[in-house]
Amino acid sequence: MHTDFSRYRVEPGTELSLADHDPRDTSAFAGDKDAAKKRCKKLNERLEELQEALYAEGRQRLLVVLQAMDAGGKDGVLRSVFDGVNPQGVRVACFKKPTPPELARDYLWRVHQHVPANGEIAIWNRSHYEDVLVVRVHGLCPEAHWRRRFDHIVNFERMLHDEGTTIVKLFLHIGKDEQRERLQERIDDPKKRWKWNSGDLDERARWNDYMAAFEEAIARTSTAEAPWYVVPGDRNWYRDLVASEILVAALEGLDIRLPAVDPAIQGLRLE
Amino acid sequence: MHTDFSRYRVEPGTELSLADHDPRDTSAFAGDKDAAKKRCKKLNERLEELQEALYAEGRQRLLVVLQAMDAGGKDGVLRSVFDGVNPQGVRVACFKKPTPPELARDYLWRVHQHVPANGEIAIWNRSHYEDVLVVRVHGLCPEAHWRRRFDHIVNFERMLHDEGTTIVKLFLHIGKDEQRERLQERIDDPKKRWKWNSGDLDERARWNDYMAAFEEAIARTSTAEAPWYVVPGDRNWYRDLVASEILVAALEGLDIRLPAVDPAIQGLRLE
Repeated sequence: MHTDFSRYRVEPGTELSLADHDPRDTSAFAGDKDAAKKRCKKLNERLEELQEALYAEGRQRLLVVLQAMDAGGKDGVLRSVFDGVNPQGVRVACFKKPTPPELARDYLWRVHQHVPANGEIAIWNRSHYEDVLVVRVHGLCPEAHWRRRFDHIVNFERMLHDEGTTIVKLFLHIGKDEQRERLQERIDDPKKRWKWNSGDLDERARWNDYMAAFEEAIARTSTAEAPWYVVPGDRNWYRDLVASEILVAALEGLDIRLPAVDPAIQGLRLE
Repeated sequence: MHTDFSRYRVEPGTELSLADHDPRDTSAFAGDKDAAKKRCKKLNERLEELQEALYAEGRQRLLVVLQAMDAGGKDGVLRSVFDGVNPQGVRVACFKKPTPPELARDYLWRVHQHVPANGEIAIWNRSHYEDVLVVRVHGLCPEAHWRRRFDHIVNFERMLHDEGTTIVKLFLHIGKDEQRERLQERIDDPKKRWKWNSGDLDERARWNDYMAAFEEAIARTSTAEAPWYVVPGDRNWYRDLVASEILVAALEGLDIRLPAVDPAIQGLRLE
């Protein structure tokens, strides 16, 4: 089975209503978790191959942006999708509450430092999108101010694209009930308690505001050069499958060419 | 005497012909070098005051971009105009031939790291403009590629402006004869020999190509948010005067407000 996962892409210039995207969707595998897991394993092997080729070629770059509500699965995707991939050449940058030096400069300053170099995959766990999400929901700057950022972001990502970076943006979409279960687990399960942050409850209370902020941010910044995907997030196995399919397809599209072989080693037999 | 130095500004959306800009122009002081030097000294003191206020306020930022042909006076402006200004709060970034890590990423990556923080003045000795100047003149990437950069640069600078950075860009304009004299001095004067670089001759041979590249780059990227000024460069004293006038005017325009005084120290007398 090989489904077209581009249906999860948010087409540029269209509106987005998250209510129309079912977080429990498993349609591509009709709920067949075992078949999906097999497919996921294959995709993981393919991702390993492609990442090594990208690194060997040293000419192109991939940037993956991960956004979600708390407990939305960003860490899970990182662990599952990139499992076994050579960490040399894959860099994860995690953007938390901005530090004083970060707040003293424009909001793109801190993320720009972490763009991938030639041959690298960079994965941003949260990103510059926080500056049109949390900043908006908590009113941290005037509306006219954060609204200008949609254009900044589109222009910034277009520049990265023009200069050789492929960009894929994944919104891991969980339902509010699913979030309750996951946060409850962080309270109940001693092994998960380190993830607990009482601030998450305050964010959860603003769920609808966040959904509105995500809808507009995603719709305004999904472009041909840097598309957003809304990934159904309630079923981990399906979320990992969809994310893997999208990332493998992005790498397959790069036309990676290994460097030419040194003719001197043609048929060479070492003594 | 207080002349309007905004006449050296390149108005947004207009063409630029450098042949119409006399590098030997001293019109604002009608060649009166002594009067100009006195004025320059005053401006320097004012710059010191304004820089300290900017630093104390800690809310705004100033970015100064310096571009010129070799021996065009970038180092001279740095030394004269910022003479005595507290180096805490003033950062100079010098952009030379890109390093391998810089070449492995987009061309704005290396400059973005050096934007000023709140309260700071950053001065860029060369800048991202090299990527539409030397890159163009030497054909280091296809024309369609560097041409897209005009838009990137305008968008990047607009973002910096929107997020609180004031930008002033100075092109120090010297004549080809003046450059010959200055480069000859680097050969003849043992104290200046360290500045000699035989590569400068190759660049000098491409003088006309560089003028065309500067004309288009400046015209395409002079905006209300980040204007270019063409500063007559053949007379050092006049160049320093014009640069000082422009920078002081930019800082005066910021409406810098010192932090409110702690009421507890009102009338306090230490024992």
